[in-house]
This record gives sequence, C-alpha cells and structure tokens, in this order.
Amino acid sequence: MESPLIDKGHNSLSTVLQPWHVGVDVGGTKIAAGVVDTNGGIRVIYRRSTDTSSPQASLSSIAEAVEQAITESAIPRQHILGVGLGIPGLVDADKGIGIASVNLNWQNVPVKAALEGILGLPCAIENDVRAAALGEVRFGAGRGLENILYLSIGTGIAISIIQDGKIFHGLNGMAGEIGHAVIERDGPLCKCGGRGCFEAMAAGPAIARRAWSKIQAGRASMLVNPNRADALTCEEVFQAAGLGDSLACETLQEVGKDIAFVLQFLFLFYEPQLIVLGGGVSLAGQLFLDPIIKSLEQQAAESWVLAKVFKPQMIQLTTLGRDIGILGAAALCTPPR
Amino acid sequence: MESPLIDKGHNSLSTVLQPWHVGVDVGGTKIAAGVVDTNGGIRVIYRRSTDTSSPQASLSSIAEAVEQAITESAIPRQHILGVGLGIPGLVDADKGIGIASVNLNWQNVPVKAALEGILGLPCAIENDVRAAALGEVRFGAGRGLENILYLSIGTGIAISIIQDGKIFHGLNGMAGEIGHAVIERDGPLCKCGGRGCFEAMAAGPAIARRAWSKIQAGRASMLVNPNRADALTCEEVFQAAGLGDSLACETLQEVGKDIAFVLQFLFLFYEPQLIVLGGGVSLAGQLFLDPIIKSLEQQAAESWVLAKVFKPQMIQLTTLGRDIGILGAAALCTPPR
Repeated sequence: MESPLIDKGHNSLSTVLQPWHVGVDVGGTKIAAGVVDTNGGIRVIYRRSTDTSSPQASLSSIAEAVEQAITESAIPRQHILGVGLGIPGLVDADKGIGIASVNLNWQNVPVKAALEGILGLPCAIENDVRAAALGEVRFGAGRGLENILYLSIGTGIAISIIQDGKIFHGLNGMAGEIGHAVIERDGPLCKCGGRGCFEAMAAGPAIARRAWSKIQAGRASMLVNPNRADALTCEEVFQAAGLGDSLACETLQEVGKDIAFVLQFLFLFYEPQLIVLGGGVSLAGQLFLDPIIKSLEQQAAESWVLAKVFKPQMIQLTTLGRDIGILGAAALCTPPR
Repeated sequence: MESPLIDKGHNSLSTVLQPWHVGVDVGGTKIAAGVVDTNGGIRVIYRRSTDTSSPQASLSSIAEAVEQAITESAIPRQHILGVGLGIPGLVDADKGIGIASVNLNWQNVPVKAALEGILGLPCAIENDVRAAALGEVRFGAGRGLENILYLSIGTGIAISIIQDGKIFHGLNGMAGEIGHAVIERDGPLCKCGGRGCFEAMAAGPAIARRAWSKIQAGRASMLVNPNRADALTCEEVFQAAGLGDSLACETLQEVGKDIAFVLQFLFLFYEPQLIVLGGGVSLAGQLFLDPIIKSLEQQAAESWVLAKVFKPQMIQLTTLGRDIGILGAAALCTPPR
C-alpha cells in the first residue's frame, strides 16, 4: 500500500503516482532536462549552459540540470524511474560510454556509471539522433510502428533506424551516417574529405551555399546583399522562399530533389513503414517538405516499383518539435510496448 | 532407440541418421531439388524442366523433383524434415503464398499448402534472392553472422537483408528492390518505367549494352562484330576483359564504379558486417569484384567516415557458387543457430 502523497497544489494524486523519467538533451552549449510521463507529457523543463571545460565539469552540469528539473517538477524522487541522455557524437549505448563527442570535448567518458554514481538513478545514454527516432516511435509520428527511419537534417545529416521497435546500431555503431554517403559524384567538398556527400548537398550550411552561389552568378534575389559574402543562412533562404523569391524557391527545389534521391533509395532498400524528417532544417515545415514529396511523386509516376513502396503520407515531419531531444532521451528509459 | 538402418552402400549409418532437408531452386525454365544436410552438404541434386502451363502443372513439376531427389538420395523419408523453396518473384513467406511470379505465371498460388498436401512434408517458401542470403549466413561466406546484405546481380538486381540472422522483408515484402533505385538521374530507361535505375546501369544486359554503345561509337575492340548488333552478351564482355580488351575493361571499370556507388551508400546507412555479391554476373569473379573494391578504396581514402565502415574484406563473392539456390532454399527449413 502506498501512503497518500501531499498534493503540491498543481499535482493530482494520480499524476504524482505514475512513473516518470527524466529526458536530457545534452548539447555542446546548452542542456535541457525534462521530466516526462509515460505518454510523452512534459511536466517541466530545466535549461542551463554546458560547462565543457572538462568531462567532470560537463557531467556535473548534466547532473545539476537533472536535479533541478526533478525539484521543479515536485515529483517525489521515488517516482522518477530513470534518466535518459541524448548525446551528440559516437556513443556505446550498451556500455554507457561517450566514445567521442567533439561538441562536448569527450573521449571515452563513462557517462552512465558516473551519472548513476552522482544521481543514484538508473541512466541510459544514446546518440541524440538515434534517441530522437525512438522518441518518434514511442511518442510521435511513428507511435506504435516497428520499422521507421528518422532523417535528421540540420547542420549535419544523419539517419536513425528503428528496427523491430529498437534502435539499430550497425557493426560498430555507425549505421545511419548517410550524411557522408556521396550522392553527387565529383560534387562539392565535404568536411569529411569526400566530394558530393549528402551533407555537403543538403544540410543547412549547404542550402545557404547553394543559394549564395546563384547570387554570386549574378541572379536577382531579395537575398542579394553585397556586404554579407558567404554569411547567408539557411533560415534566410527559407524566409525568402516563403515570400516567393524565385532564386530561393529554385534552391529549395534542387535541395528537395537531392533529399528525394536519398529517400527513394531508402524506400526501395528498406521499405520502412514511415520516414520521419527532423532536425533544424525540418522546422521550415512545408517549404522544406513539399519539394521532396513532389520529386518522389514524379519518380513514382514513372516507376511502378517505387509506386509500390512509396506513398506521400509515408514521409512526415516530426510532430515533437523542439522537444524531440528531451522526449527521445526519455524514451531510452521507458519500456517498449 | 532407433532401429539400425540398412546401409545402401554409399551411406554410413551416421550419415543417414542425421536430419536432412530438401532445397528447391525453382526457376521459370528449370527446377533443381537438392537433398542437403545441416552443414550445407549436398548429397544429390535432381534437375528437371518446369512445366509452366498452369500453376497446377508447375506445382506437380516441383513435387516430382522433390520426390525424385529423395529417392535418389536413398535417405529414409522419416529423416527428411522439410522442404524449402526459393521462388522468383513476390512471395508471402508467412502465409506460404506465391503472390506474383512472371517467370512461373503465378498469381496468388497457395504453394505451401498445395505442396504439403502432395508431399506430406513441412514446406517453407521464400523469394529466391532472400533465400540465397539466408544460405550465406547458414552455410556460406556469412556463416555465423547476424547482419549481412546479399546483393544479387544477374539479369535483374535485388538485395536481401539479413537482420539478427533472419530475413527482413519490409512493410509489404518489397525491401531490397534496389534494382529500381535511380542511381543516375536522367540515365537510360529501365523496364520499370524509371530512368537510370541501378538495374538499367549494372545488371547483365546493361553491362552488354554499355560495351555495345562504345563499339557503336566506333571504338576498337575484339568485341566488334557487325553481324551481331545488340546481341552482345555480358559474358562476352567479361571474356574480352579477361583477354585485356581495353573497351571491355573500361566498361567493367564504369560498372564497378556504379556498383560501388550503391555499396558506399549501404555501408554508411546500414553498416553491415558483410556484403556478399552473388547472381549470374558475379560468377565472373575477380574481373567483376576488383573494380568495385578499387572504387570503394579510392572513396574511403578521401573520406574518413567511409573508411570507418568499409574494409575491402567486407565485400565478398558468394562461395556457394551455382548451388546457392538449393542451399538458400534448404536454409529456409533448417533451424537458426
């Protein structure tokens, strides 16, 4: 028998008694810790800066964020069942080790053991994009599905594979690194050293570069600004496209074709139930999505094989918005259906 | 206690007492039924033509081949535990139905139920390329591995995904149809209606076409033969390349680059333990494999990300040769490790 709990005013008894988890979106500059129920409801989010001066310091930042979030939630600690952490970079989820993260300045940091020692709560860690995909099947557009792909397009590009409801890691945890698959032979140089990588063609900075190169070629656009050189941002390109700027619209058509080129390959190779699009660039919404769908529809109209595996509703924007980092992390410690 | 069995001369007692399966490679023109032990040893193969005049007739052809193979093997029927069938076309493996096969003239044929009725043995069916991949992890180059890809390049192109030691089918059994993924935008017309599909660039007929178009352009080659028009075969191109013909060698370099383009994508997306190459074209051996490996090595030398997920030994030619159809089918009814 549970003894009755004191209602803190905004808590109903049943709300407090259900299990809760803390999902932590760990970034190189900011940490966001949310207290999340088993349906993906976020009770409170606590945000703070990340101290990356040392692994110890960053782990202390994370622990402090978790403690503050729990305190602010007014959920009794015994109802917090665990803490999930989504981390940028290469993660060994089984061993709980942050193998390499440039943003956090981590090399082989025993994140799980260290945080469990500080917090006294079970912790689970995962790469942030992979965690986001789990958030999608637990709480988002892919709720209840078994085999989906989550394509994150932001400053970089990566994909996460949900296979039988679980994250698929590949041989050494590198599955999904299609940001560095070549999609345009002899295309622009990528920071990995390759040429024409997906990331060098369609990530945020690449979208800005593509618009800028059209401007440099003398094309008219509301984006033209001789004082800015290559300081154009992807957001500005989407804004201009939203206002009907033809150069910006043309850029997004081209980027949409390149993303569709990757997606047609994934539909035919993997035949997923759903592909969810997330990441910073996806926040542009329909301006981002429409050219992708249009290009796939054109290809499917020509090829009966693609028409069998692709339907427009099988590509969706994430519905979890900016909270996907917290919800994905929380999903790491909630039991699968 | 088993009662002693009569040795038929070529049978040792232990050989007869072990469990056996029949693997059937069902083609549109020929059927090959093999009696296979649990290590992939083939005791006997019986071959006959396929009667495709009706689904009934083709099922009778298959049943007759199975019975003849069992009889010729001299294995007592009670030691034959089941029959596996690899079928060209779309198969519902769970329901045991041949959904669509152009070569066999099948539409929704209840293969499993029909053959179990005739043979009195448990039957399992699968698409032939998918079965071949299972043969690889059970008996071949991928023995004991969990996550491999089997790429079959012959008259057509398809891939089979082995995930956690089992065949992955995708949403509606179409996973692996990458023969119809576009790899060259605005490339040559494919029979699916698309342009620049992988199959239209690198399957056997496409290899012949690519060599022929160079000849048509007036290039010197031992392949030039004005009486043949487009009757050039893929085998002839490989033969000429083996003799050092520069046009044929150049064709295979180009085809190798196209196949490598697909493989780099698969390594980065899926990070398999191994990719096995099979199908009729792969029988050309190193002449087929070398340009693929060379192209991937060049790309990996540029991109550290690809270098992490690709090593040359991760691409292998099938070691099961022309028996892969029988062994893959037999693997359908042998228990996984």
